[in-house]
Amino acid sequence: MKVKVGVNGYGTIGKRVAWAVSKQDDMEVVGITKTRPSFEANIAIREGHPLYAASQTDVANFEKEGYKVNGTLDDLIKKVDIIVDTTPGGVGEEYKKKYEEAGVKAIFQGGEEHGLAGISFNALANYHEAWGANFVRVVSCNTTGLVRTLFPLDRAFGVERVTASLIRRGADPGDKKGSMLNSIEPSLKLPTHHGPDVQTIMPWIKITTMAVVTPTTLMHVHCIAAELKNKAKESEVLEVWNSAPRVRLVSGKEGIKSTGQVMELARDLGRPRGDFNEIVVWKDGVKVVENTLYYYQAVHQESDVVPENIDCIRAMMKLENDPMRSIHKTDKAIGIGK
Amino acid sequence: MKVKVGVNGYGTIGKRVAWAVSKQDDMEVVGITKTRPSFEANIAIREGHPLYAASQTDVANFEKEGYKVNGTLDDLIKKVDIIVDTTPGGVGEEYKKKYEEAGVKAIFQGGEEHGLAGISFNALANYHEAWGANFVRVVSCNTTGLVRTLFPLDRAFGVERVTASLIRRGADPGDKKGSMLNSIEPSLKLPTHHGPDVQTIMPWIKITTMAVVTPTTLMHVHCIAAELKNKAKESEVLEVWNSAPRVRLVSGKEGIKSTGQVMELARDLGRPRGDFNEIVVWKDGVKVVENTLYYYQAVHQESDVVPENIDCIRAMMKLENDPMRSIHKTDKAIGIGK
Amino acid sequence: MKVKVGVNGYGTIGKRVAWAVSKQDDMEVVGITKTRPSFEANIAIREGHPLYAASQTDVANFEKEGYKVNGTLDDLIKKVDIIVDTTPGGVGEEYKKKYEEAGVKAIFQGGEEHGLAGISFNALANYHEAWGANFVRVVSCNTTGLVRTLFPLDRAFGVERVTASLIRRGADPGDKKGSMLNSIEPSLKLPTHHGPDVQTIMPWIKITTMAVVTPTTLMHVHCIAAELKNKAKESEVLEVWNSAPRVRLVSGKEGIKSTGQVMELARDLGRPRGDFNEIVVWKDGVKVVENTLYYYQAVHQESDVVPENIDCIRAMMKLENDPMRSIHKTDKAIGIGK
Amino acid sequence: MKVKVGVNGYGTIGKRVAWAVSKQDDMEVVGITKTRPSFEANIAIREGHPLYAASQTDVANFEKEGYKVNGTLDDLIKKVDIIVDTTPGGVGEEYKKKYEEAGVKAIFQGGEEHGLAGISFNALANYHEAWGANFVRVVSCNTTGLVRTLFPLDRAFGVERVTASLIRRGADPGDKKGSMLNSIEPSLKLPTHHGPDVQTIMPWIKITTMAVVTPTTLMHVHCIAAELKNKAKESEVLEVWNSAPRVRLVSGKEGIKSTGQVMELARDLGRPRGDFNEIVVWKDGVKVVENTLYYYQAVHQESDVVPENIDCIRAMMKLENDPMRSIHKTDKAIGIGK
Repeated sequence: MKVKVGVNGYGTIGKRVAWAVSKQDDMEVVGITKTRPSFEANIAIREGHPLYAASQTDVANFEKEGYKVNGTLDDLIKKVDIIVDTTPGGVGEEYKKKYEEAGVKAIFQGGEEHGLAGISFNALANYHEAWGANFVRVVSCNTTGLVRTLFPLDRAFGVERVTASLIRRGADPGDKKGSMLNSIEPSLKLPTHHGPDVQTIMPWIKITTMAVVTPTTLMHVHCIAAELKNKAKESEVLEVWNSAPRVRLVSGKEGIKSTGQVMELARDLGRPRGDFNEIVVWKDGVKVVENTLYYYQAVHQESDVVPENIDCIRAMMKLENDPMRSIHKTDKAIGIGK
Repeated sequence: MKVKVGVNGYGTIGKRVAWAVSKQDDMEVVGITKTRPSFEANIAIREGHPLYAASQTDVANFEKEGYKVNGTLDDLIKKVDIIVDTTPGGVGEEYKKKYEEAGVKAIFQGGEEHGLAGISFNALANYHEAWGANFVRVVSCNTTGLVRTLFPLDRAFGVERVTASLIRRGADPGDKKGSMLNSIEPSLKLPTHHGPDVQTIMPWIKITTMAVVTPTTLMHVHCIAAELKNKAKESEVLEVWNSAPRVRLVSGKEGIKSTGQVMELARDLGRPRGDFNEIVVWKDGVKVVENTLYYYQAVHQESDVVPENIDCIRAMMKLENDPMRSIHKTDKAIGIGK
Repeated sequence: MKVKVGVNGYGTIGKRVAWAVSKQDDMEVVGITKTRPSFEANIAIREGHPLYAASQTDVANFEKEGYKVNGTLDDLIKKVDIIVDTTPGGVGEEYKKKYEEAGVKAIFQGGEEHGLAGISFNALANYHEAWGANFVRVVSCNTTGLVRTLFPLDRAFGVERVTASLIRRGADPGDKKGSMLNSIEPSLKLPTHHGPDVQTIMPWIKITTMAVVTPTTLMHVHCIAAELKNKAKESEVLEVWNSAPRVRLVSGKEGIKSTGQVMELARDLGRPRGDFNEIVVWKDGVKVVENTLYYYQAVHQESDVVPENIDCIRAMMKLENDPMRSIHKTDKAIGIGK
Repeated sequence: MKVKVGVNGYGTIGKRVAWAVSKQDDMEVVGITKTRPSFEANIAIREGHPLYAASQTDVANFEKEGYKVNGTLDDLIKKVDIIVDTTPGGVGEEYKKKYEEAGVKAIFQGGEEHGLAGISFNALANYHEAWGANFVRVVSCNTTGLVRTLFPLDRAFGVERVTASLIRRGADPGDKKGSMLNSIEPSLKLPTHHGPDVQTIMPWIKITTMAVVTPTTLMHVHCIAAELKNKAKESEVLEVWNSAPRVRLVSGKEGIKSTGQVMELARDLGRPRGDFNEIVVWKDGVKVVENTLYYYQAVHQESDVVPENIDCIRAMMKLENDPMRSIHKTDKAIGIGK
């Protein structure tokens, strides 16, 4: 019998998670919630996800516009084994109570604090920490990106210390909220929260981060300097990442020089929504100087955490004991591949 | 037997046309040309299109990088019934000679002058002008956009005169060439060429156009004022477009307020490459004042001409006599739908 | 004795108006208001404008940060002959009561409705309507731009009808609020309010407008089609604008092809803040087709209304009876020139 | 007698250097060169700089458009003591021969290699290296920015090692050339040249740099991690920079959170062209963690090297022996101040 999944919030992450769940053979979408009528509500229906309103008032708003609603979030909770909570960051606390009362498991996203769930998750790095747990947080897009490349590096060569600058996109491509035009805005509170956030997964690692926001919508780019404990050649580093899940190597030489071209590659590969679930590392932008490895990676903020949510469901529901088997199952089902 | 199609140039338009040809049951891709190794060449191979080099020198460049090349453009020409020439604008003259000598038909794109082919094409408006022709030009993305909404309008109500301002995107999302950042640049040569270009399809229409370039990559937007000969209500106009092929109505009310959100809809609809082949008109941005109709439309410059190329092949190869049947066949095969 | 001016609100427009007032010999800045400590409050002090807090609470906030505050808005009102209200659009109603009770005249900006003041103002077009008035509205940047070129055109050739598309900048260069990145957003409510707003100054003119927002910060650009009653050559039109105040002709041929280059010209001319108070028309983007004149103009949204506010003070305070003398006096004092 | 200065190239840097020279009392602009008629040539004339054409052909082009030209570059060279060469990067080699033959000193800009001049210059760090020299290179905007904050740091606390990520603007605000829209583009060749370029001034420093290009025009932003030899508190670091020339501290708390707001401050301060010649450091973005100092700085690429060129002239012409006196003289003359 398939695990019954509800998705609370059908925005950038929620709609992708719902789609990804629907592609797996061991879980199914029982319903998604939406607060008001919109083209995204239509998409949910079109994709076959039963529509639930966030509250009773919202039900009325939907029905006024002719939508068929299957109930409220409270109704949905009763029908599921696990909720993936993709509501906007910072409101998880309130929902957590609901889930607890109903005795349903829940996954929160990186917009919430680690403390809310007590466990932060990355499939490769700490799959078993989520084993059977009731509440787990899948870390943010940027943190997921950092862990995806640093964890295999650390395992292969030992990472002494990391300094990273995160060049963040200002808003998502279809975002209703905006961002400053034509400006670069540094995140003044230093070090930024991304370092400690990586440490919720890899508590032993020394990492300090800085961040700026730039007026672009496509991807974040990270400039990373990682001091290695053991000597490594560029070719050995590339080999490690080539074997790591959800890391994809590209090269400027073949015409992929910017995030615009990475996204073009995603479109050309036929990826759903033009997404790039893997972390993208430039092969010809990897350099070892003395014991420090320098590299650039691009993070598709809309989609890199999506497969992590799927694996997290498997771990929490004890569907698959081997992380690599879960990762490969997920990736195959949604079309991620080298 | 399927019509044998060659695609000369595998860039923004070429790769989409090749893909669209491969989805039809009455034509097939015999080969595509590329001038140098790149990720796009890999995509062609991945999609199953035999790779040809533009010239003999290019063959060497490909082979040095380990690519299997099936010959040059000259070799490809010998194997096809028709070439879709999607080389950069302005070089068609030279290629035309090659095609003529080889006795192969060819379709040029809107970057070329009308005079090169002598016939300019839009499937709905003048399908039969291309019937059996040797050389035809599919008009540009902007011209295609204008004809798609004006032709049905003219048929329904009569169009007395059109004034249109074209707000152009500065570059394509993955474009290697750039555009001015943070500036608006008017096209000073007035009226712009778009009006006369519409007249290559609808010679009877009075239309004057202005244009500016803006720093965005997603879509062009047209602000159109069309004086109608016969009175029309907004609802009647919407009905006309609702029945017209390759026009899609959206509304700000349902959350689609900008080109970013139109593109988001395309992604959510699962459109390949996140393309929107239809012209997008805002329902709640349509207004009749006295005898003038005002409306906004968005044009996806990367993809709106793609289905026109398919229909153009059918007309030139006399595969289907009824334009609407060709249009529907094309659209169904590549997933365009209301 | 100089007219005593208070400036309520020291943001984009307010800081420029205060500076412009301080450059005139027949008026002086008695004080400006600010709601909270910021670098702009420092600028006010540096420029020698006495600082007032919007409210008593704000006084406390300023004093906590070590600022010397001269009182509140209520105190300022008592010391002035006239207030230039440059508070954010839509809150004028509330302030108007204060001004009325204190018996002080006030100028509102284009973010307020015409009805609030009952008189809308452009120095060239209707200076005397403001003569001795208690409340007047200086129209918005876009409306000022349209009136600056249309009024002289109408006087010279008669304007039958105008169709204009406004390509708006998304946010100001230093704006804390953002705008959608990489998108074009049409103003769906048609016709847009800009046409009726022009008619508050030129009630006899037929004008319909459309508008889109684009992701740039520098200037608005207007695409204008004006049907003329009397025949005009391009050279005659240019002559009219060359003689009109606050219109500046530039040309693409000399390297000014975009709003970025217009702003570069302003900087090179040594204009304070790099502002361009004039409306900029491209000479080589002016074209007459039959009886319709097509042209592009650029509007510097941060500064074009500034000199209008100065002239408006003169009219309301009966300082100068001749509009052209006021205009020239203002322009000379703040460095506007051909 | 004033030192006679010629400026070869009157673009972004050249026009600013010419203006800055004209503000000093110990040097004067004898002429500037321009290759073709444009609004910038008009500005040169307006500013009182005699116009010279780059070549004899260019003279003809100017005269056809009615410009008075005073000769060619060869003529200008004969009249000057020193040339500031602000021609586009990479063509200095050719010009150097001309200058050598004429026995005239010359300053090159950061677009040229260190080897061309053999001496690279920053007024604070190595003024005397340029003393009486014939050829000196003023380093690039980014390198100048790094030296301005690192040199005082090193002197005060000792700098063990620097890791910096440079977030570069894509193009200048009035740039005719464009840049990729909506993309981030990493500089794949690692480490980037900026580190070695800093070492042409501070050869003892260990520094490694990475860089990305972003779609904005205003300023570069640097994310810097500097390991210090001696312990330092944030307040001590700020004190060092507060006393250093051409470094300006700002704070997010007072509303300066992004490069857009830094530029707004420059405009509000009445800086010519809205320039910011100082390096801008965010006070509330400075943090010491263990022995590493993290900070953000913004670099105004159009203007930070301008005062360095003035000081370089003084050193090469032996006008002033004390670097700090030259720096203060320059800064006072062009309005740079805390």
